[in-house]
Amino acid sequence: MAPELAKLAQQRERLRYEKEEGMITFLCDAGALRPGLTHRTARDIFWMLTGGDVFRMLVRERGWSPQRYQNWLAKTLVHSLLTQARPSPKRLSSRPEARTR
Amino acid sequence: MAPELAKLAQQRERLRYEKEEGMITFLCDAGALRPGLTHRTARDIFWMLTGGDVFRMLVRERGWSPQRYQNWLAKTLVHSLLTQARPSPKRLSSRPEARTR
Repeated sequence: MAPELAKLAQQRERLRYEKEEGMITFLCDAGALRPGLTHRTARDIFWMLTGGDVFRMLVRERGWSPQRYQNWLAKTLVHSLLTQARPSPKRLSSRPEARTR
Repeated sequence: MAPELAKLAQQRERLRYEKEEGMITFLCDAGALRPGLTHRTARDIFWMLTGGDVFRMLVRERGWSPQRYQNWLAKTLVHSLLTQARPSPKRLSSRPEARTR
C-alpha cells in the first residue's frame, strides 16, 4: 500500500474509534455492558470486531456471505459486550439446525 | 508491502489455517464445540481470532499488553467455540460493579 493510502487508512480508523465513543458511553450509562467490562475495553473490542480486517478475513478469505458475517457480528457483539439477557444456551442447544431450515 | 512479502504472508496464513484443522477436529470429536457450531465455522473463527491482525489491532494500535491480549484471547476462544461450562451468567450479572471495586 502506498504511504499516502496507509496514512488515509490510519486516519479513517482513528475517526471510526472516535465516533464509536458515544455508543459505548450510552451502553455503559444504561448499565448494559457485561459485568467487569470497562468502557475502554468495550470500545477497543467493538472497534476491533467491526473493522475491515475481520470482514476481510471471514468474507473475502474464508468465503462467508456478507449476510452470514452480519449475523455472526451481531451475535458476537451482543455476547462480547452486553449483559446476558437471552434464553438459556441449554434451551437453544438441543436442536442446533432447527431454525436454519 | 512488496508483492513477494504479501505472497509469503498469504502462504503463512494458509498454512496456519491447515495446521489448525486437527485441533478443531479434536474438539469436535470430543463434543466440546458450542451447540450449532460447525467444524468449518469453528475453524474460521479460531483462525480469525488467533491471527496477527487481531493482535496488531489490540496490542499495537490500542495499547493492550501482550499478557492482557493473551488473557482476553483465551477467554474469547472458550466463549466463542466451546460448550459453556461456567457459572450461570444470571448469577454474575445481577451486580455489575460488585467485582470491580
